[in-house]
Amino acid sequence: MAMKGKAVVAQSGGPTAVINASAAGVIQTALSQPDIFTGVYGALNGVLGVLNEEMFDLSTEDPTQVDRLRRSPSSLLGSCRHKLKSLDEDRGDYERILEVFKAHDVRYFFYIGGNDSMDTASKLGQLAREIDYDLICVGVPKTIDNDLAETDHCPGFGSVAKFNATAVMEAGLDTLALYTHDTCTVHEVMGRNAGWIAAATGLAKRYEDDAPHIILLPEVPFVMEKFCDGVAYSLKHYNRCFVVCGEGVKTPDGKYLGEAGGSFSKDSFGHTQLGGAANTVRAIIEEKVGVKARTNRAGTAQRVARHFASATDVEEAYLVGQKAVEAAIEGVSGKMVTIERVSDDPYQITTGLCDLELVANGEKPVAPEFINENGTHITDAFRQYASPLIMGEAPLDMGDDGLPNYTRFNRALVEKLT
Amino acid sequence: MAMKGKAVVAQSGGPTAVINASAAGVIQTALSQPDIFTGVYGALNGVLGVLNEEMFDLSTEDPTQVDRLRRSPSSLLGSCRHKLKSLDEDRGDYERILEVFKAHDVRYFFYIGGNDSMDTASKLGQLAREIDYDLICVGVPKTIDNDLAETDHCPGFGSVAKFNATAVMEAGLDTLALYTHDTCTVHEVMGRNAGWIAAATGLAKRYEDDAPHIILLPEVPFVMEKFCDGVAYSLKHYNRCFVVCGEGVKTPDGKYLGEAGGSFSKDSFGHTQLGGAANTVRAIIEEKVGVKARTNRAGTAQRVARHFASATDVEEAYLVGQKAVEAAIEGVSGKMVTIERVSDDPYQITTGLCDLELVANGEKPVAPEFINENGTHITDAFRQYASPLIMGEAPLDMGDDGLPNYTRFNRALVEKLT
Repeated sequence: MAMKGKAVVAQSGGPTAVINASAAGVIQTALSQPDIFTGVYGALNGVLGVLNEEMFDLSTEDPTQVDRLRRSPSSLLGSCRHKLKSLDEDRGDYERILEVFKAHDVRYFFYIGGNDSMDTASKLGQLAREIDYDLICVGVPKTIDNDLAETDHCPGFGSVAKFNATAVMEAGLDTLALYTHDTCTVHEVMGRNAGWIAAATGLAKRYEDDAPHIILLPEVPFVMEKFCDGVAYSLKHYNRCFVVCGEGVKTPDGKYLGEAGGSFSKDSFGHTQLGGAANTVRAIIEEKVGVKARTNRAGTAQRVARHFASATDVEEAYLVGQKAVEAAIEGVSGKMVTIERVSDDPYQITTGLCDLELVANGEKPVAPEFINENGTHITDAFRQYASPLIMGEAPLDMGDDGLPNYTRFNRALVEKLT
Repeated sequence: MAMKGKAVVAQSGGPTAVINASAAGVIQTALSQPDIFTGVYGALNGVLGVLNEEMFDLSTEDPTQVDRLRRSPSSLLGSCRHKLKSLDEDRGDYERILEVFKAHDVRYFFYIGGNDSMDTASKLGQLAREIDYDLICVGVPKTIDNDLAETDHCPGFGSVAKFNATAVMEAGLDTLALYTHDTCTVHEVMGRNAGWIAAATGLAKRYEDDAPHIILLPEVPFVMEKFCDGVAYSLKHYNRCFVVCGEGVKTPDGKYLGEAGGSFSKDSFGHTQLGGAANTVRAIIEEKVGVKARTNRAGTAQRVARHFASATDVEEAYLVGQKAVEAAIEGVSGKMVTIERVSDDPYQITTGLCDLELVANGEKPVAPEFINENGTHITDAFRQYASPLIMGEAPLDMGDDGLPNYTRFNRALVEKLT
């Protein structure tokens, strides 16, 4: 018989279109086992909610709203960017978390997030063992960046990939229509350290002349002359050039392109403005190639674009949440649920488990075999990898006002006991 | 019996999610009447295609691709921003158009566009009358900006409104999740002279604390102190502030906000960078209010976001194209098809006709009764006006790669005769 006690589920880091589907997987599976889980709490704003003892009882929320998490974007438990350091440096915080857990008899901690979250969950489990407090910590993978180690891919990536590939297809047709006036477009996508999202927009290119014509990846240093040659080639052959630019593209000396562009990348206080890569690229096109360029930068709207999410991504996000609870019931701790690919065609996956530390300390850039020889587009191997992840349209609960209905929680906090 | 002759259909100005649906309405209706329309040509890139005698025969395109125009964004005949001036100033161009029309026995000209296109069509019809060349010119309204006179609303607006309202709802939930780190978001939308699109994002607000918290409209001069007070109010009551900013917002002295922001709004050559309003607002929030702000700016991707278009908009766009041909068959010329609202609830419209000159010289800012007293949000009257326009989800032809299939024309040019 599994250990009895409360479960806390928390979300951390940047929201995604499907992180709530993972939360739904955790919550619904846990609520279905009241003999084991004597309560299921959501931590308000990730680990901050535990530190501040701000948690809400998910069994008191409307089950319709809980189920709607499958069809709702962003992190509706609340998220944070509060990074805990090592056990030595931030021991007080880790102890505080365990104090809160003890007070509420929390025996299960499900943390949905990326590297940092897995690191926190790992260290928390370690301290719990040290002080002999029975606590099961299981990680649920989440990141649009798709750069977590040990898993074939990350929930959240398929949806941001589908949305951005579609946006590039559509904006590419816009550039096709107006090339006599607006000849180039620079479309910036998220991905600070890894270019998975930028690469995924390459899926929009079905024909030789389709957008994107050039993809700038953080994995490939930006070389001015080569880039300008590429733009010129595109102008010559297609009358236009559509460039996708990862926000984390760097110059050969390792500077972010957004920092290299002078006034573009600084705010009024002289601070470096992150995410300014597209403006730098636009300026380069206008100055060096001499044609007009526009910039698109959807910003946070891209990562939470649940209105055009991948059905595959939504299903897998729910699955990893469900599997985390099933593993916990079996006594597994200190692990993250992974996605393992069984086959590409037909696309089949299974789930596995890996040590939290391996995820905490790993990262996964776009593999060399996924980048073409020229460094400016994707290979067929990447298509084979990424195509299944954007398959299927995920239904929405539409309101009678023409807009989606997304989960709205009461988030009434449980009484503080510490 | 209607005059026999060829028809030319052309698209002009900024693409939209549904301008191709209007083209489909024109093309399919005209092709169904071969006794009248001896040919149906698309002008490649609007009036430029006529001037250059670059036209393609739509009867030779795959009917599946023609029908798919109903479900395809951007201007797939090709568009342009080539503005013809008065008959005196640009008489040579107008004469050249008529020369090309005569050579191909073109007797019908359907121009899908905004003010400038209606102006061109009007003047062309005038010159044709002067030289006794029988030519029927009918305008089909198109603009995401929704600022054409004489029509209740413009095809293209409903879809950009639905997409942006949804994006604001989603990104608003992102800000809700991460307010402890990224406290404010500034979401810039298109609309240089009129704030209809910015206003439409107000539809995303269903509850007191929902985004957007502040809407900056070009119709309301931006006053620094008032704005900062508004942000502070939002921070106090909701812990965050989500601002929607029309790209054409101006300071009280009439300068675009994007020009007012110092280094933000200049490119590396000191040119004013248009569309920089969000960066200026972000800097103001960070400097004056002292919290972190992010910017979203989907750029051209918003106006062609066919993947989440309004079904109402798609249907009406087709209808105005169809009605233009039906009017032409009846001998109507020098008119634009308009949309007239019969009732709000149930939503019913009919079409009408107005003089092209009235559209050419008119414009329609957001009406005062649609803007709240404070100048920072919409009224119930606006909801009543705009809600029906975003209703319904418009189906897509999805490919087997998880992405939409949009029309791809051969655009094989007809032989030049001049």
